Amino acid sequence: MIEKRLEEAKRRADLNYFVYINERAAEELEALAKAGRCGKLCGLAVAVKDNIEVAGMPITNGAPYMRRVATETAPVVAALMAEGAVVIGKTNMHELALGATNINPHFGPTRNPHDPTRITGGSSGGSAGAVAIGVADVGLGTDTGGSVRIPAALCGVVGYKPPYGKLPTRGVLPLAQSLDHVGLITRSVDDLVRVMAAVGWLERELPEVKRFRFAVLMGIAENTRHVEKAFWRAVEVLERIGGVRDEVFVEARKYASARAAILLSEAAANYYHLLRGVGDKMGKDVATLLAAGAALPAVAYITAKQVKEEATQFFNKLFKKYDVVATPTTATEAIPIEEADSVAVRPKLLAYTELFNLTGHPAISVPAPTSGLPVGLQLAARDEEVLLAVAKMYEKEVAD
Amino acid sequence: MIEKRLEEAKRRADLNYFVYINERAAEELEALAKAGRCGKLCGLAVAVKDNIEVAGMPITNGAPYMRRVATETAPVVAALMAEGAVVIGKTNMHELALGATNINPHFGPTRNPHDPTRITGGSSGGSAGAVAIGVADVGLGTDTGGSVRIPAALCGVVGYKPPYGKLPTRGVLPLAQSLDHVGLITRSVDDLVRVMAAVGWLERELPEVKRFRFAVLMGIAENTRHVEKAFWRAVEVLERIGGVRDEVFVEARKYASARAAILLSEAAANYYHLLRGVGDKMGKDVATLLAAGAALPAVAYITAKQVKEEATQFFNKLFKKYDVVATPTTATEAIPIEEADSVAVRPKLLAYTELFNLTGHPAISVPAPTSGLPVGLQLAARDEEVLLAVAKMYEKEVAD
Repeated sequence: MIEKRLEEAKRRADLNYFVYINERAAEELEALAKAGRCGKLCGLAVAVKDNIEVAGMPITNGAPYMRRVATETAPVVAALMAEGAVVIGKTNMHELALGATNINPHFGPTRNPHDPTRITGGSSGGSAGAVAIGVADVGLGTDTGGSVRIPAALCGVVGYKPPYGKLPTRGVLPLAQSLDHVGLITRSVDDLVRVMAAVGWLERELPEVKRFRFAVLMGIAENTRHVEKAFWRAVEVLERIGGVRDEVFVEARKYASARAAILLSEAAANYYHLLRGVGDKMGKDVATLLAAGAALPAVAYITAKQVKEEATQFFNKLFKKYDVVATPTTATEAIPIEEADSVAVRPKLLAYTELFNLTGHPAISVPAPTSGLPVGLQLAARDEEVLLAVAKMYEKEVAD
Repeated sequence: MIEKRLEEAKRRADLNYFVYINERAAEELEALAKAGRCGKLCGLAVAVKDNIEVAGMPITNGAPYMRRVATETAPVVAALMAEGAVVIGKTNMHELALGATNINPHFGPTRNPHDPTRITGGSSGGSAGAVAIGVADVGLGTDTGGSVRIPAALCGVVGYKPPYGKLPTRGVLPLAQSLDHVGLITRSVDDLVRVMAAVGWLERELPEVKRFRFAVLMGIAENTRHVEKAFWRAVEVLERIGGVRDEVFVEARKYASARAAILLSEAAANYYHLLRGVGDKMGKDVATLLAAGAALPAVAYITAKQVKEEATQFFNKLFKKYDVVATPTTATEAIPIEEADSVAVRPKLLAYTELFNLTGHPAISVPAPTSGLPVGLQLAARDEEVLLAVAKMYEKEVAD
């Protein structure tokens, strides 16, 4: 089974999902089984974003000039492996995770499984793609502005960003520490819940939710027609499963500026030194963003952190009234690789998702009902188990 | 009694300690007594630094252009008042608390009680002076780099900065939120402990300390001869009361740069807007520091916060080996007002104290044995009660 996965990964090399394939995956699984240590996730194939360390495998952070072989395994990967999951490879990503298109100038653009001329979105695009084509069961990614949810939405799978600080970020290369999350990509909410339960990442059983109040967040971005149509269909599904709808306006521009200031400042603190050494080897979009970050004054950063607090309080208050909030995951469906200027396209991809990097609330992207290119429905909540319960009901209703 | 205090405060108006005197203090005390609400601190005279709100009294932050009448009382003041303490007035301070000399261009320099041609130090100089001349029993101040401990040292009284976050900063105007502390000034450690116990600010009884290990911190600043002599006398006292001495080198320059970057960035975020409006009315030293803060890049601030973490870890580790660390409070005794350029003199005043604003550990300044101008011994520890117990023993030994 694992062998087939590796074969398929190689057969679809044109999609650029993997930067490293673990040829020893089958062997490792066999050893686990022999030792009787194959647990609840025995044989689960995991694709790990290439900014997460797996001992013995190379890690590049999407940037060949950073390549080294990791000597430790990030606890978030180790937790899955402890239940018998096997890492099948390291996945292609946006360079330094600093972008949402996943057009990587070194490893090639990750290509959308529904239309290879289009982007997967990112920066965890390789993990999302690998899950979408069935090569991996679980994709591990990171999400600083939407990097798990965005490619999940554009590739038609499920992407989940747990609450800030929940999953350990040790062994995960930082982008912007105040916003960085580790997240998971799966083909269904069912899979996601099963995996999280197996490794003890859920606090309790999912509650039974019969009726819930939800708010559609308004005033954030202008959606394409295709997204708009699919999103409101998804909202209808939420109503059918017991959701009582309301609409709430959000000061998204202020929040977006604050998130950008924090992201760029912290990213520059982490990686600006690379510009001097290997700047000529860096993608222009990434170099531009790092230079912008290095030019930001401390006062802008400190003010942005205060806005982050405000945003968190705003949503904490909102979540007293609503169990769940709903938005499209992205304002656009996957765009053609040729048209995707990484800097210009940022707001269209990030506007909805970045809100919950700022506030730290758990947020999930699930496929919205549509034909043609996939569209994501983003749900966020204060309570992780309520969020997953609603997402699971939604998924079931869409399938029925 | 309270009347006499007010009279004395007015008689010594030349010292510039008060910017506002509470003429109703005696009346308020009488009302408290009549209502049977005069508790453990009945009649205690409190001098409140003019960046802390007391309802009904003006507040200026050492800057007349910020003057307004406060409508609430800071919880830290209210706690003392609830036990029968009375606020006798608001005290002069360094403008915006952004300086350590207390040479205030608007309200005059606070003059040292031991030599009125010299500085008190600051920025809580008015509170320290008022306690030193016996007008107040307790001075409330704030301490972002040493602003409670420095004037206490130079005026020959006791200044205490509790652990970061211990005393509430609500109703206290911010200077740099990551470093801001509220602190107390008294004439003795005995008084300090009595007041803190009365309002419930001690977690437990002070322990009996028979033997303790202490480290003298080295490599931080060059002391004047007068300070050097008094400090080592103080160290001898520590040895006499059971202290076992060691010496430890500290990377003070790195820590000082980090503290400065945090201080100036956060101060600029709070007050830079004033430069545009009322910059011409501002002291030159304060305007210079705010402009410097506004020019700092976010990357420097973020890096400084990382150094702050390192410093905290360094001292946490040190405090596993040593119960207490000792330094002079300042590298110089009080300097003549005429020679005290507020920017140039900063390192001499701040080098020792600012370490514990960076780490957040509790630190106290107690008078060192000397004749002539006062010198402070600074003690810091991880455990607040151990620190106060050692300071109390030290004080008793010096008195005997």
